[in-house]
Amino acid sequence: MSKSQGRVTLPAQAGYMKESLELLSRWGADAIRDCDGTELPPELKKTGAKIYSTYFVARGHNEFVKENMGECQQIYLMSKFQTARENKVAIPFMAGYFKEQIKPDYDHDPKKWWEVIDRTGGEVVDAKNWEVNKADETVVVHGAVPFHEYTVTFLAYVIWDPTQMYNHLTNNWGDVEHDIPFDVRKPKSRQFIHDYLDKWLAENEETDVVRFTTFFYHFTLVFNEEAREKYVDWFGYSASVSVEALEAFEEEKGYRLRPEDIVTAGYHNNPFICPTPKFRDFLDFQQKFVAQEAKKLVKKVQRAGKEAMMFLGDNWIGIEPYGKYFPQIGLDAVVGSVGGGTTLRMISEIPAVKYTEARFLPYFFPDTFREGNNPVVEAKSNWLAARRAILRKPVDRIGYGGYLSLAYKFPKFVSYVEKVADEFREIYENIAGQTPYTGLKVAVLNAWGRLRSWQAHMVAHAIPYKQTYTYAGVLEALSGSSVDVSFLSFDDILEEGIPSDVDVIINAGLRDTAFSGGAAWRDQKLLRLLREWIDQGGGFI
Amino acid sequence: MSKSQGRVTLPAQAGYMKESLELLSRWGADAIRDCDGTELPPELKKTGAKIYSTYFVARGHNEFVKENMGECQQIYLMSKFQTARENKVAIPFMAGYFKEQIKPDYDHDPKKWWEVIDRTGGEVVDAKNWEVNKADETVVVHGAVPFHEYTVTFLAYVIWDPTQMYNHLTNNWGDVEHDIPFDVRKPKSRQFIHDYLDKWLAENEETDVVRFTTFFYHFTLVFNEEAREKYVDWFGYSASVSVEALEAFEEEKGYRLRPEDIVTAGYHNNPFICPTPKFRDFLDFQQKFVAQEAKKLVKKVQRAGKEAMMFLGDNWIGIEPYGKYFPQIGLDAVVGSVGGGTTLRMISEIPAVKYTEARFLPYFFPDTFREGNNPVVEAKSNWLAARRAILRKPVDRIGYGGYLSLAYKFPKFVSYVEKVADEFREIYENIAGQTPYTGLKVAVLNAWGRLRSWQAHMVAHAIPYKQTYTYAGVLEALSGSSVDVSFLSFDDILEEGIPSDVDVIINAGLRDTAFSGGAAWRDQKLLRLLREWIDQGGGFI
Repeated sequence: MSKSQGRVTLPAQAGYMKESLELLSRWGADAIRDCDGTELPPELKKTGAKIYSTYFVARGHNEFVKENMGECQQIYLMSKFQTARENKVAIPFMAGYFKEQIKPDYDHDPKKWWEVIDRTGGEVVDAKNWEVNKADETVVVHGAVPFHEYTVTFLAYVIWDPTQMYNHLTNNWGDVEHDIPFDVRKPKSRQFIHDYLDKWLAENEETDVVRFTTFFYHFTLVFNEEAREKYVDWFGYSASVSVEALEAFEEEKGYRLRPEDIVTAGYHNNPFICPTPKFRDFLDFQQKFVAQEAKKLVKKVQRAGKEAMMFLGDNWIGIEPYGKYFPQIGLDAVVGSVGGGTTLRMISEIPAVKYTEARFLPYFFPDTFREGNNPVVEAKSNWLAARRAILRKPVDRIGYGGYLSLAYKFPKFVSYVEKVADEFREIYENIAGQTPYTGLKVAVLNAWGRLRSWQAHMVAHAIPYKQTYTYAGVLEALSGSSVDVSFLSFDDILEEGIPSDVDVIINAGLRDTAFSGGAAWRDQKLLRLLREWIDQGGGFI
Repeated sequence: MSKSQGRVTLPAQAGYMKESLELLSRWGADAIRDCDGTELPPELKKTGAKIYSTYFVARGHNEFVKENMGECQQIYLMSKFQTARENKVAIPFMAGYFKEQIKPDYDHDPKKWWEVIDRTGGEVVDAKNWEVNKADETVVVHGAVPFHEYTVTFLAYVIWDPTQMYNHLTNNWGDVEHDIPFDVRKPKSRQFIHDYLDKWLAENEETDVVRFTTFFYHFTLVFNEEAREKYVDWFGYSASVSVEALEAFEEEKGYRLRPEDIVTAGYHNNPFICPTPKFRDFLDFQQKFVAQEAKKLVKKVQRAGKEAMMFLGDNWIGIEPYGKYFPQIGLDAVVGSVGGGTTLRMISEIPAVKYTEARFLPYFFPDTFREGNNPVVEAKSNWLAARRAILRKPVDRIGYGGYLSLAYKFPKFVSYVEKVADEFREIYENIAGQTPYTGLKVAVLNAWGRLRSWQAHMVAHAIPYKQTYTYAGVLEALSGSSVDVSFLSFDDILEEGIPSDVDVIINAGLRDTAFSGGAAWRDQKLLRLLREWIDQGGGFI
């Protein structure tokens, strides 16, 4: 049997030409890519394989942003709860944050953009009664009620891109410069982003695929004072704010958002919180803007004769691949990291793109590719979980990421991937375009519905998380089962009833979360509609 | 060393004179008792040991109650939730109940004493819109909203005493007559109860201690249609209602209780539910009445030259040994079953009695005393758990219950109890009346406070229960620790502040229960007081 070829992307690495060529051949790769922290070796660009180039829209240009630090990306953060012991209380609002990542914004009037809340009394403290002390980064509240707790919500600049920060700290990059993210909503940055892409496209003729990582706003990833993860939400919009955004929101939606509407007592509207009408408005507002700006970049890429691919992650906030604005962006492809069947389906079912690609685990990073560890273990469990889902709805390509030189040191791993690549191609050639057998149509019911298809119960991608593990398992089971799966929100049912082709509805999640529904179940109409449907034979789990 | 004697009660059994005398001597017993289902052998009454006689106040007199079935004890029960499929819905309200235990009360007008609730809409259905169909035990609701759920709360007679029912079914008593409980609040029963005690006292001169089991109302113990436990709440007041009680309540408290105030959507005001003001009123109302009636019986016993002892269990509802009316009853002693350190302290700390007695496990019943089982295992774990608590605050006596003949067949068990009895006496002689070393004063904070001292998180006595096991462990640990333990309610703190001698406050329990506090924590004053106290050095767990 002659070796099969194609549908595989190889992360190449400068200085390892021989190794790159060998793996290109053994894995049957037909595309090569660079990776955060690596550069493509120029020789490889001549092998005939498609060339993917990683492209950062809103970071990696410190020469620009250092001259325009007022255009850094911004974030709303909340201080810790501070108990007043007397009528005056000082709140050290930066306590617990990582100063290399976060810098308070004193450029815009704190009295207007910050908020002090008496969390015991549940009242906003009048801005007359507090002042900011920049010297020691405190807010001092006067006329406080002793033994009430107070918080400050403050606007800050993000001065280190969280993904680069994570990679930097994980891989010990030492004195590599910190990427400072800038904001497309601000005038100079917007100009720069477009101009730079023009220039880059002109200079990178050999690139076939521009792989955006991603567009404008990073999911919420905040480190603590010890440079460890403090808060992560793969769906968080808290780092997509700015004075400009808040003002544009007010103009578009007719009302002003409070800082509390973004930080929600420190919960940052995480996806477990039943989404408020205001947060839904903010999601809509940012999605519309992000789609409009991303579309311009995609068009430029396509006009230059290249494909535009989006990495599902990093600065993907506002993209919402299952949202109503996504198709307008006009992307050619989406690539994303696969943690199991659920994430595979999340990628493979994204609408309005020509193809999808799965980045398999493990990344070729020194945390896994270290002496004494066997990376095949993770690779195998990753592939077995994903394969079930591929049989239902395949991605069109697969690939890996990281330092090729590290993987090369593990011959068993190299052989295992060779086998995976062949098996993937065999499956793909047999099933692509076919409709799989389907026993039932299942709808997953929660507050998010289609917007967060396959994204329910996810925290940081597919990383197991005690509180959601069981519920996430429901989706993982569905991802490879012989059933059709759709996602339904409570509002969908209230507005349009239960789709007539649904056989079983699954509502799963911790009490009082967006996934189980919380207060949604107090709606009598919802209860009536569901009970009637069950009475007529519908299955409800 | 000569054998120690005393402080031990032996359950004697007719027909086993030799065995009874042998154990009396080996265990050093100085008191003998009968037991539910056994009679004392007359010869034993001449050994010089104190004689306890079990006395049932409100059961065991079918000859009386069968002539007065309208004076049976009553209970409020709720039907299952019934979904309406059209405008008319029939609710089979007896579905799921055990007909040998429960009989609907049609004697008092259901339109006045029952309640139909639309549980989806949250509204009471006007009595005009439903009727009772006695023939098939349904309530038919007209004008129902399709796919809303409806319940009926109905008043019923309890026609089988739940403890006798439990013992009867557990020990296969076959055609032994079912004890029908009657209600001291009803005129003929009240007369009968007093007259019968007079007669009994006159006829039982040899009795030294009248052991009441207990007084008037049984805790809530409802069996299902398969004669298995459906609902048990050792603290439940749902079986203490009657038309007479509800009318007297209205007179005393100035407002009328609804059936829903008793059944609370099927949760029956169980101790996990934060007690409502109405339920607190009902508790107060029943306690006052129970104390007043029990006091009369106790006085009669004492006037006859005997001691009045109360068993903590069975018909103990309304007694509340830590409540404000209990001391008025004037009991000589309390005896209770010990499941571990917590229940030991619950008994040993009861105020206003001359002595307390612990009934150790296992009961000499065939479920434990069967071939192939080793009853020493349970006896040892029971003694070891109780011993820790005894060292902090001893009961004054110990004893066992059940069929002596069964225990006698297990010589290792008999020897083990011999050792326990000696050890108990040795401990007691050394520590009784001493104040143990105390490192700290701990207060357990919940919605119940002192009223339910040592009773927090308890469901059916000390039986482990998944949802409370961890929290109950806190009390179990405290029961034998070298700390003083007190019980504090949220109201205590709000009304009187935190007692100045408390070092540590423990607040433990599942979210939104009376034990963690639920909405109590929204009280700003409570938060302020506790934070201030913590700020001044108080420990809060």
